Amino acid sequence: MSGGAAAGVSRRRLLGATGAGVVGGGLAGYAVSRGLDAAPAGATESTAAPAVSLDAPIPFRGTHQAGIITPAQDRLHFVALDVVTKDREELRSLLEEWTRAAERMTAGAEAAPGGLVGGGPNRAPEDTGEAYGLPASGLTITIGYGPSLFDGRFGLAPKRPAALQDLPAFTRDQLDPRRSGGDLCIQACANDPQVAVHAVRNLVRIGFGVVAVRWSQLEFGRTSSTSTSQSTARNLFGFKDGTNNLKAEEPEALDQHVWVGPGDETGGAAWMTGGSYLVARRIRMHIEVWDRTSLQEQEDVIGRDKKEGAPLGAAKEHDALDFAKKGPDGAPAIPLTAHVRLAHESHLGGIRLLRRGYNFTDGSDGVGHLDAGLFFLAYMRHPGRQFVPMQRALAKADGLNEYIQHNGSAVFACPPGLKDGEHWGQALFA
Amino acid sequence: MSGGAAAGVSRRRLLGATGAGVVGGGLAGYAVSRGLDAAPAGATESTAAPAVSLDAPIPFRGTHQAGIITPAQDRLHFVALDVVTKDREELRSLLEEWTRAAERMTAGAEAAPGGLVGGGPNRAPEDTGEAYGLPASGLTITIGYGPSLFDGRFGLAPKRPAALQDLPAFTRDQLDPRRSGGDLCIQACANDPQVAVHAVRNLVRIGFGVVAVRWSQLEFGRTSSTSTSQSTARNLFGFKDGTNNLKAEEPEALDQHVWVGPGDETGGAAWMTGGSYLVARRIRMHIEVWDRTSLQEQEDVIGRDKKEGAPLGAAKEHDALDFAKKGPDGAPAIPLTAHVRLAHESHLGGIRLLRRGYNFTDGSDGVGHLDAGLFFLAYMRHPGRQFVPMQRALAKADGLNEYIQHNGSAVFACPPGLKDGEHWGQALFA
Repeated sequence: MSGGAAAGVSRRRLLGATGAGVVGGGLAGYAVSRGLDAAPAGATESTAAPAVSLDAPIPFRGTHQAGIITPAQDRLHFVALDVVTKDREELRSLLEEWTRAAERMTAGAEAAPGGLVGGGPNRAPEDTGEAYGLPASGLTITIGYGPSLFDGRFGLAPKRPAALQDLPAFTRDQLDPRRSGGDLCIQACANDPQVAVHAVRNLVRIGFGVVAVRWSQLEFGRTSSTSTSQSTARNLFGFKDGTNNLKAEEPEALDQHVWVGPGDETGGAAWMTGGSYLVARRIRMHIEVWDRTSLQEQEDVIGRDKKEGAPLGAAKEHDALDFAKKGPDGAPAIPLTAHVRLAHESHLGGIRLLRRGYNFTDGSDGVGHLDAGLFFLAYMRHPGRQFVPMQRALAKADGLNEYIQHNGSAVFACPPGLKDGEHWGQALFA
Repeated sequence: MSGGAAAGVSRRRLLGATGAGVVGGGLAGYAVSRGLDAAPAGATESTAAPAVSLDAPIPFRGTHQAGIITPAQDRLHFVALDVVTKDREELRSLLEEWTRAAERMTAGAEAAPGGLVGGGPNRAPEDTGEAYGLPASGLTITIGYGPSLFDGRFGLAPKRPAALQDLPAFTRDQLDPRRSGGDLCIQACANDPQVAVHAVRNLVRIGFGVVAVRWSQLEFGRTSSTSTSQSTARNLFGFKDGTNNLKAEEPEALDQHVWVGPGDETGGAAWMTGGSYLVARRIRMHIEVWDRTSLQEQEDVIGRDKKEGAPLGAAKEHDALDFAKKGPDGAPAIPLTAHVRLAHESHLGGIRLLRRGYNFTDGSDGVGHLDAGLFFLAYMRHPGRQFVPMQRALAKADGLNEYIQHNGSAVFACPPGLKDGEHWGQALFA
């Protein structure tokens, strides 16, 4: 991890203090209880560029949940949970307690007042402790509700949004039920993985007896940029990924493609106004096969050049994709089966998604290969009208299919952000 | 990941340039080929403290291999491989090619000249590309040879050091053969996990047809400090771990406990002089059980207080352990079954190890819990005289046993460092 309390100042905090500045807002009060100074060094240097402040907290409350259009942090721990209680009130109460804990942790504090020792020697500590002394590290905690939460168990069936449906089967899917589905999800993004894992682990701990882990996924590197302040990252095929992604700086496009609108739009679930639907897909990449493929084949499959990320037939990453342009041989410069062609809005009736994917590697597959790939996360207004037609088009013809396999899948309704005093589940259980 | 080539300057590099400085040594020549400037911004600020330069390269060659007493980087990707060829020369040749690739990657370059595009459109790229544009990030690549490499296949039986033996079974072991053993290992440590994963993946790629992945482990946070310049990090039980670890700044103690001496010391394998033996143990932690345990019980099991990390009965982390001291109730302040008591050199005839452990979380275990724990790595002169008696003592009485389970195990002989012009395997195959 990045540092500890012993030396008084972690390495990341030192970076913040000497060069990058630390955004002080939102830290007051909580910061003391996780072993940080109440007024961290550098907090007054508010003119420093926030883009480099990897340590700073990100506000928990707002119109939308944090962790969706927030500039994608470097690391992610994602967990899907099943509710194991049959008691509606226990679930409602857990969501309220989770809200308090999540708000504290995103501010850099322990999960509950008292932290490591506050409960005294005869009680289990209120916080598991492994993030003690670490800064907020840009932690965001985003919650979502799966279709199965709205079955008969908790009386939530009338609250189910029409848009929240299990995804249909797609051609080539090889889904593992142990990596799919879930009543609830928690997406914890941070610039320090120890902080993200700590957040998930403490929420799971708080939920003992009410929820149990169904599956989880640790990710080591973002592949999507969600803000114009970020450079485009590379996936494990070595290509820049998501150049044309929706960005936080495009509010009109986000309203059109990501945020659920008011009224009938919500499909009868007014509590989802301002929320978004999350589709999660674990995409195993056959990197060993890919790595033995020629550069030309790789670029034809993607539709961009490998080094710059420029569309084939163009020169720079952000040049427009010209699907009509022919190459020297008279064939389309961007092949008809290229991923960028099939996934482009112009071939999908204007469909776009906000992607927030991460690279993963999960040990080995038992036959001499690394188990690695892309954990695809995308936010949208309506999975049935956005992800489903897009994935059908890709599953049918995408040249990438030869090199990838979807083996996990889930969909969640992520409610809007919270105003002061509100908590998760409040609107859902109202 | 931390950044990409698109914006010209990654976030980490920006931190380096504005606040932390970048150590320029060793980067010349290679840096250009991974998309970095030949003279990175900040390279001339050589007075900046190197401890915060997370981007800088670490020299590949030296008396000992890097990655052993190197201040422990934040992330680790570890892979164990089996040799699948029967051809001795193929193996020798691979070790030579690996040396070239490892030296290039630790300097921040691609795995081979030409990188992403150098081989032309009709060839597979010489580098897989996902680290293109990222700095060296303190990458070290450390190689080790398992006992099975010295069977009859490659004529290496006469070169086997007497100290390189499979570990005996220990009480309570529940080893999974799919997480144990291996003919070879590669330990890739870096401050950016994308850089560590890239290194392992490219070495595996180069080894196609000669070696195959047996198991691998991605780690997200160091738990050991190996230098006095580092603060003590916390493990997933929330405790500071390895306060009394050997440190890079103690050369006499390292000669005594870590580095294999010359002459008879090597057990007939002169090529191991200056090397070290690595013991790797995957220790699953039952964090859900631990998290419901009282603070008092947790502190008694470890023998230190949770917040400061001080020995029980003392006030500060680095205070001496007083095993004779009694508490108010007349019992030893540090209980007889406390981990720090049983693992202390004073109870083990002076045995010490250099620990280099990392925290991991690998999804869930299928029964509602996170599969998380400690990947224990330790370097020593002689496993049979150091790790084995220590682990026997711990397996017998350590209070921690109730909360942990060893489910992976391996031992490797890590040769000494390379002089200019030398390559891995040269001394072994001489």
